[in-house]
This record gives sequence, C-alpha cells and structure tokens, in this order.
Amino acid sequence: MTPLEEQGKAAKLAARSLACAGTGAKNAALNAIAQALRNHTGEILTANSRDLAAAAEGGMSESMQDRLRLTPERIAAMAEGVEQVAALPDPVGAAVSETVRPNGLRISRRRVPLGVIGMIYEARPNVTVDAAALCLKAGNAVILRGGREAFRSNQALTEIMRRAIAATGLDENAVSLVQDTSRDSARELMHLTAYLDVLIPRGGRGLIRAVAASATVPVIRTGEGVCHTYVDDSADLAMACDIAYNAKCSRPSVCNAMECLLVHRGVAGRFLPMVKARLDEKAVELRGDERVQEILGSCVVPAAEEDWDTEYGDYILAVKVVDSLDEAIDFCNAHGTGHSEAIVTDSYARAQRFLNEVDAAAVYVNASTRFTDGGEFGLGAEIGISTQKLHARGPMGLGELTSTKFVVCGNGQVR
Amino acid sequence: MTPLEEQGKAAKLAARSLACAGTGAKNAALNAIAQALRNHTGEILTANSRDLAAAAEGGMSESMQDRLRLTPERIAAMAEGVEQVAALPDPVGAAVSETVRPNGLRISRRRVPLGVIGMIYEARPNVTVDAAALCLKAGNAVILRGGREAFRSNQALTEIMRRAIAATGLDENAVSLVQDTSRDSARELMHLTAYLDVLIPRGGRGLIRAVAASATVPVIRTGEGVCHTYVDDSADLAMACDIAYNAKCSRPSVCNAMECLLVHRGVAGRFLPMVKARLDEKAVELRGDERVQEILGSCVVPAAEEDWDTEYGDYILAVKVVDSLDEAIDFCNAHGTGHSEAIVTDSYARAQRFLNEVDAAAVYVNASTRFTDGGEFGLGAEIGISTQKLHARGPMGLGELTSTKFVVCGNGQVR
Repeated sequence: MTPLEEQGKAAKLAARSLACAGTGAKNAALNAIAQALRNHTGEILTANSRDLAAAAEGGMSESMQDRLRLTPERIAAMAEGVEQVAALPDPVGAAVSETVRPNGLRISRRRVPLGVIGMIYEARPNVTVDAAALCLKAGNAVILRGGREAFRSNQALTEIMRRAIAATGLDENAVSLVQDTSRDSARELMHLTAYLDVLIPRGGRGLIRAVAASATVPVIRTGEGVCHTYVDDSADLAMACDIAYNAKCSRPSVCNAMECLLVHRGVAGRFLPMVKARLDEKAVELRGDERVQEILGSCVVPAAEEDWDTEYGDYILAVKVVDSLDEAIDFCNAHGTGHSEAIVTDSYARAQRFLNEVDAAAVYVNASTRFTDGGEFGLGAEIGISTQKLHARGPMGLGELTSTKFVVCGNGQVR
Repeated sequence: MTPLEEQGKAAKLAARSLACAGTGAKNAALNAIAQALRNHTGEILTANSRDLAAAAEGGMSESMQDRLRLTPERIAAMAEGVEQVAALPDPVGAAVSETVRPNGLRISRRRVPLGVIGMIYEARPNVTVDAAALCLKAGNAVILRGGREAFRSNQALTEIMRRAIAATGLDENAVSLVQDTSRDSARELMHLTAYLDVLIPRGGRGLIRAVAASATVPVIRTGEGVCHTYVDDSADLAMACDIAYNAKCSRPSVCNAMECLLVHRGVAGRFLPMVKARLDEKAVELRGDERVQEILGSCVVPAAEEDWDTEYGDYILAVKVVDSLDEAIDFCNAHGTGHSEAIVTDSYARAQRFLNEVDAAAVYVNASTRFTDGGEFGLGAEIGISTQKLHARGPMGLGELTSTKFVVCGNGQVR
C-alpha cells in the first residue's frame, strides 16, 4: 500500500464511525476545533510565516502572498466560521421520503454522508479549515490536498484539528492532509476510487479543468464563472446601471462577478454612456464589439474572439450590443460557464423566457449575479459553487455533502 | 466537426427546446411513439431478424440471442412501457424549495432537465425504447449507443421514434442513435464534454468499469450487484429460509439477486441444512468456507478468495459462517458493491445497527433484496440502479434524470 492508500483506508474507517456519530458529538468536535485554533494561534502564525518567507524568496506575487497570509484576525475568523458550521442544522438522518408499499414494505429514503471526500485546492490555507468543518458536520471524512506554497500552514492547521477531534472522542482520521505536495500525489488522489467517494477541486480554472479531465473518482466542478448581465430594452436603466456596476465592481476577483455585459440595441445609445460613466469610477477597461465602439468611441478596446470566453477576475468588462432577447439567450448559453446569468427587464414575458431558457446554476431577473453564494442563498456556509448539473448545482451547503440510502423494513416479504 | 459532434450539437439544441416543452407536448410524443411501435411491428421484426441471423452466424450463445430477440409480444410490451412513462408525473418545473431573503430576493430552486444524456449499453434492444421514453419525459435529449449486435434493431426503433416525435412537433433530435458501433465511437462519446451532461452505462461489469475508468463526461455507475443476506442468530429461520431462497432463485441473473449468504455461527448448524434443502429445488451450487463445509459436508464446493467478490448471476451461492454482527457488517462493507444488503433478525438493536452501518444503496431488514427496483420502490419506471453515492443512489426514476436551477427574482438588489 502507498502512503496515500493507507491514508485513504484510515479515512474510510473514520467515515464509517463518523456516519453513526450523533449531532452532539460532531458539534463538540467542531467547537473543540474552534477553541484549539484560538489557543494555538502562535503555532499557526509561525508555520505560516515560514510559508510566507519561502513564497517571498520564490518570487510569489504580492496578491498571492496576501491570499497565503494568516493573521490573528484571520485565524479568529476561521474559528468563528467553524462555530457557525456547528450551529447549522445537521443534514444527516432526515428522511427525504417515506412510503409504505402495498405489500407492507416500509421504504424510507434517508440522508446519509457521502463517505470520504477529497479536496484539491491552491494557496489559501483557510480552505483547510472551512472544508474540514463542513465535511465533518455532514458526517464525512476528508482528505485535504492543499497547495505546496501553504504546506506548513496547512500541516499546522490539520494537526491542531486532528488533536481537537481526537480529544472529543471521534476518530482523528476524519481529517487528514496529504503529506506529499508533488503533482504525483494529486494524480494518485484523482484515481483513489477504492477510498474516495468524491473529489472537489477548488481554485483556478486550470486546476479544475485538469482534475475534471483526468480524475476517475467522481468530481464536482466548482467555481468557473463567466457571468453575463443582459440589459433589455424595457429595462429601468438606472436600475440596470446599479446592477451592472455592482456585478462588475463589488469584488471582481470572485466567480459570481460579471464578465460580460449584453445590451439591447434599442437602449444601447442611452445606456452605454450611463454605465460607462459609472464604471469609470473604478477605471474598468471596456472591451466592446463594433457597435459598442461606435457608441462609446476610442476609449473602448476592440474585443477579440477570446474576450467572450474569458473570466477576467479583474476590472475588465466585455460588452456587446445584441439585436434581441433570443440573441442574448443564445449568447449566454454559448459563452457562459453555467454559473450565474442575469436579465434586467420590465417585461414579464421576457423575464420568464430568460429564466427558463438560460441554462445556468442561477438565473436572475433584476438583481446582481453577485448574490450566488451559500450565505446569501440562505444555505449557511458553502463548500463551493457547482457549475455542473450532476448531484449539486450552484452553491453547495451541507445538504450537498450528503447522499441518500433506501432503508427497507419488512416482515418476511419475498418477490 | 466529427459526425458525433454534429449529433451532440443537434441533441443540445433539441434539449433546449425540450426543456421548455410542456408536459402535454411530451406526453403526446410518448403516446405517438407507443402507437408507432405497434404500427411498425413488422419493420422492427425484419430488422431484428437480420441482427439475429448475423448473431447466429457469429456463434452468439442461445441466452444472448434470447436477449437480442424481439417478438410481437415484446414490442407490444415496449409500447405499453412507453405509455406507462407518459402516465407518470412530470418531474420538471416543480420548486424543490423557495425562500424570500431578508433583502427581498425570492429564491426558488426548480427542477430542470439534466440536458443531454448519453447511454452506452449492450445487446438488449428494449433499452433503446425504455431509455428514450424516460429521458424524453424528464425533458432530456438522449444519444443512444447500443451494442453492435443489435444495431439494425436499434436503428429501426430509433427511426420510428424520431418520426413519431417529429410528427407531434417536437425536435426529433431529442432521440438519436450513434451510427458507428466501433469502440472508437464509445470512446469519443465518453469524452464529449461539450455536449453531454451525463453518461449512463447499462450492461455488464466490464462495460460499466471501462466507462467509469475512462470517461471525462460525468458518469452514473449502475447495476453491479454483489448482494448479501445475513441470517442473525435471533432470526425466524423459516422466514430466513424463504427470504434466502427468493433472493437467490427468483431471478438469479439480475443485479439485486443474492450472491452471498452469511449465517451467524449460533444458528448455522440448524439453518444451513434447512436452506440447503430449499436451494436444492433449483440445484443451487453452494461454495462455502470451512465451517459451512463441516456442517453440510462434501456437497459444498470450497470457496476460493474470489468467490467473495463474484457476481455469479447464476444458481451459485457463496456461503459463510460469521461469529458476530460486526463481522457480518464488515464483510458486507468489504465485499459488497454497495447495491442491496439484508439482515434477517428479530433483534431491534441489531437491525438498527445493520441498517445504519452497512453502506449500500438499499439496506433491508427481514425482506428479500430482490425488491430493489424502481417499480417495487414506487418510483414508476427506472433507468437503472445507481451504485454510486453522487447524484443518485439506488433505483433511478424520472426525478434522478433531472437537475435543479436557482431562479432568483429581484427588484434591483445589489450586494
């Protein structure tokens, strides 16, 4: 057995006991984790400072270093996040449905944990704690495979969590970190079908596509967001302006931010100057098609073909004038990543058509795509935003970290 | 574009219109299909007889030829099956949940079709019609890739269905058959991520494992069944005998049939001779461990290690004496395929432990595993039985052929 297979086997054993652990036991472990993170802040900061020193030496960009950096405040926020997860309702055990068949069999479909979840992620060490807390609350064991740059931080965090879990009487192998951060270990994890029930990659487009393309363990794709806002010719243009500004500028680096604005030709002449004035506040670069260039002039960068498929994650916006609702819907379906798509309109019929015909995890009328988020949707915390249709779609809360099981009670029935 | 990419593109377009088709339109298409199958029985039988002639020439076994064979009765049964699907409730459109957030956003999670479903299956042409009907009812387009041996039958069936669909005004590309039955086409289908939302393999273990191992399109694994029945020392032995006989003998070739009988040592001396007498009626071959051999004598074939992991699909049964409930649970979890597992017991506590701790799609107390079936579970028809935990687990009905979508209605909300 390889070290990773050993780790998988231990996680599978832990998952079995965790599946039968009560809500009280799981919450006690979570609260112990939160307390331990606070108590061991110094230890975590020391490990993190080593990661940061290596990163600075290796020439990591300042913004990446900021993602990697932990502070007493950030650690306190992580601990608080764990306590919030403890306070959420336990999804495990509830009957999704129950029926008694004509032959007397009582068939109940119950929510059960998924089992062992693998997480592959990049530089942010807070994912280590967030993911562990959510997986544990839903009764799953988790195998964490964080980025090389954050290894010392992740190791300190994981060790603290494991000790806290063991101290409350649960199996510490409920949470474990892959010790080898080479590409080989990621590849092995993607094929660990004997022990892993699902693999969730969290990070950039490159990581997620690579995992989806080569994993044989079932994968949930998360977080790729090329989101559109379509301003219809019946839209309240002041509202459209607020929504577009918010969707682009409130936090451009996240996956639910708008990357492309579509404007109906009937209002393009009025709306584009309005929205440009607003986006100028943040010096947003506009990349437009010919009609946008005609209206706004030389301040618009001519859009290249690839602009329609790019997740900028920055103060850059692709802009296009469309002739009709149909063109807008087709464009969203052709260039969107199935994340979040919005229409601004006062037409009931067009709103309905957009909501029905655009194929995405979240479709909006008259609101900013920035709301696609587990907290904003009322799911509590989230482990990611699924952009696939299988198993989970959109923000994934605790419920999405479970499966179901048919429990059949009889008194001698045969067929 | 390859022919399969063209087919995928057409299916994706059809899926979009189908997603917006009403229940009435879909039912009309299904009823037209049923009528067309009846009207064109002769055409179907002619195509099937060519497949059968080629199969006989190629030396196909008699039992495989029987799976391939269509008769007027079988075609009538297929048509009736399609009408039954038409009569089932439409899963699309229903709100799974709906909430109004403090900021006034109304967020509804609605059931929507998956999109385009790929089916890879083997020799039975009835799968062509069953799968098409279920996919269509749930608003999905389907690309069918049946076995080479049944190609002419599948082509006749598909053409008849496509004409019937078109005649009712829906897009005939809702159902299409892959025209190339080489391994290359299966491989291409497994990687058609631009057009396929999910791939469902139906057939033998080899097919399913091969698809799961190499597909990059999300796969739902179905139908592998190494199912156990555990007879506890508190069991009503007459009931246990009936259940074991039924689970093994009522239809040994199906995936919910029992392959391995576990007996508590406390009742093995009494129970094994009883159940053997019953299984002798069907001349079931017993492959037992040492303790079983001691009790039943030389009529028992000594079980080899691989017997504990074999899906016989035949009148053969692996039998083992265990020392405890714990050993039985561990054995089911180690050797089962996560399909269906049963305990026969009169102990409330042990029944609860078995139901909670055995990790399978369906767990039973005091009933035969043969009930794991969409019809028996009250789901209507089924497209297969999932043995994975992601998306769907156990018998998959129309609901499992859908995804969800968050529909968010606002009046200008920004974040």
